[in-house]
Amino acid sequence: MATILSGKAVAESITEKTRAKAEELTAQGRQPVLLIVRVGEKGSDLSYERGVIRRAESAGIAVRVKALPETVSGEEMADVLREASEDPTVSGVLPFLPLPGHLNEKIILEALAPEKDIDGATRSSMLGVYAGSGEGYSPCTPEAVIRILDHYGVELSGKKVAIVGRSLVVGKPLAMLLLARNATVTLCHTKTADLPGETRQADILVVATGHAKTIRSAHIRKGQFVLDVGINFDAFGKMCGDVAFEEVEPFVGAITPVPGGVGTVTNAVLLSHVVDAAARAYAKDPLPKSKKTEA
Amino acid sequence: MATILSGKAVAESITEKTRAKAEELTAQGRQPVLLIVRVGEKGSDLSYERGVIRRAESAGIAVRVKALPETVSGEEMADVLREASEDPTVSGVLPFLPLPGHLNEKIILEALAPEKDIDGATRSSMLGVYAGSGEGYSPCTPEAVIRILDHYGVELSGKKVAIVGRSLVVGKPLAMLLLARNATVTLCHTKTADLPGETRQADILVVATGHAKTIRSAHIRKGQFVLDVGINFDAFGKMCGDVAFEEVEPFVGAITPVPGGVGTVTNAVLLSHVVDAAARAYAKDPLPKSKKTEA
Repeated sequence: MATILSGKAVAESITEKTRAKAEELTAQGRQPVLLIVRVGEKGSDLSYERGVIRRAESAGIAVRVKALPETVSGEEMADVLREASEDPTVSGVLPFLPLPGHLNEKIILEALAPEKDIDGATRSSMLGVYAGSGEGYSPCTPEAVIRILDHYGVELSGKKVAIVGRSLVVGKPLAMLLLARNATVTLCHTKTADLPGETRQADILVVATGHAKTIRSAHIRKGQFVLDVGINFDAFGKMCGDVAFEEVEPFVGAITPVPGGVGTVTNAVLLSHVVDAAARAYAKDPLPKSKKTEA
Repeated sequence: MATILSGKAVAESITEKTRAKAEELTAQGRQPVLLIVRVGEKGSDLSYERGVIRRAESAGIAVRVKALPETVSGEEMADVLREASEDPTVSGVLPFLPLPGHLNEKIILEALAPEKDIDGATRSSMLGVYAGSGEGYSPCTPEAVIRILDHYGVELSGKKVAIVGRSLVVGKPLAMLLLARNATVTLCHTKTADLPGETRQADILVVATGHAKTIRSAHIRKGQFVLDVGINFDAFGKMCGDVAFEEVEPFVGAITPVPGGVGTVTNAVLLSHVVDAAARAYAKDPLPKSKKTEA
């Protein structure tokens, strides 16, 4: 029986710190504010939005929503991000992605200031992760993986980590974050010749294939730590990860569940970025602009 | 006895294509032009410069040198890069790095247009490599490694590659280039717990540790391809790589020599980027600005 690496415990610990920082800032007249920028009214976006609002408010973060029509132009959307970047009352901005097909995501996102890019979507944030330049924020999911390992006291330096999946939102940035923590990192993917051979060797296995139950008993060895980034739904509509949990769990040392694993922590990381952004803005400029104008 | 992967043959093949393209462009009144931007008069810079000029001219590329005084300000240096970026008669720009300590390299280099950043030093080029965004150029050394493997017909898809060294000029970009070619990539470094265990498993081993003879017989297995990125000098002043060549060569399948290996190809890649930049500029704007003004 594996240790279940509950994301809930990690998320609670992160959120506790987030809440404490948020309260401190609020007491100084600077409550952290998250701005959600949503285009259209997709059901999945609306339900995600409700979740973010609930969690943010319970962490002491105020939320504003800028809802744009499906037909918004690239320039209008960029203007919204530009204004939010300059607005001292906005701490962090979360544009819901992907944007509708007529919008050039890459260009539009550049209107967002890296210091408010709490989900790591801008070029500056990518360079922060790749080149270690300290700009912007890491995407939340790979950072959640690191936070879980840290929470459960897993030393990363010198460890052998296999990542399955090479996307720009999980696999690649996670490789960079792990490398910065001195892990030895192997990036595997659909073209890897001997996937079970690769994954079995790792001390820590992170799975982000985007497909249900791609990692089975043949891929694991006794005692491993397995982190499952996937969020899929099986034939019965039940949420499941990228790992065949029931098959793998009896053998590995520790595993994150789905739901209740990496995804749960990802949300907490996002809010920690909002408060971090608010605290940095405060440190740089202790008087909010409106007050300075009065003075 | 290993097959010696001579860089010379690869460089010649690349340079032949470079020369043909350069001649074609010259015939159209658009000879490719490389601008070297050098700060100060360091001996190593001057000798590198002589080498680049000689090779460029023999490939049909004209070279201009902008020599700046050691005391140049960041603004002056940025202005030089900005002017070169806008100058239609300059195809590619090679600023000699590192810049003297008083200059903020990261900020200054951003004055260089990515389409003329033939050594992949700008943020855009880094994102081109990391995010696959198609901007700028890859740094020449990791691309040289790929070109050597391609030249000798080594299929990369599904292959297991171990890279020793995680720098931003070799290890990380090479990992990204190999990933884009569907190799399974392991990044090793000074904190890797079992380096021989990692390196012995690889089909292809790329060594970029920056230290002489760090890879010895314990690190290799029969039949491997070994690419040595290192340029060091031993106690007798003799150039050597990061691999203990004499010790390793009898066992591996193929190995690049030092000198005459990766470094040789790196120079050829640089010139191929100049001609590529010239060809792209020509495709975008077949009439040079001076002629258009006359028209």
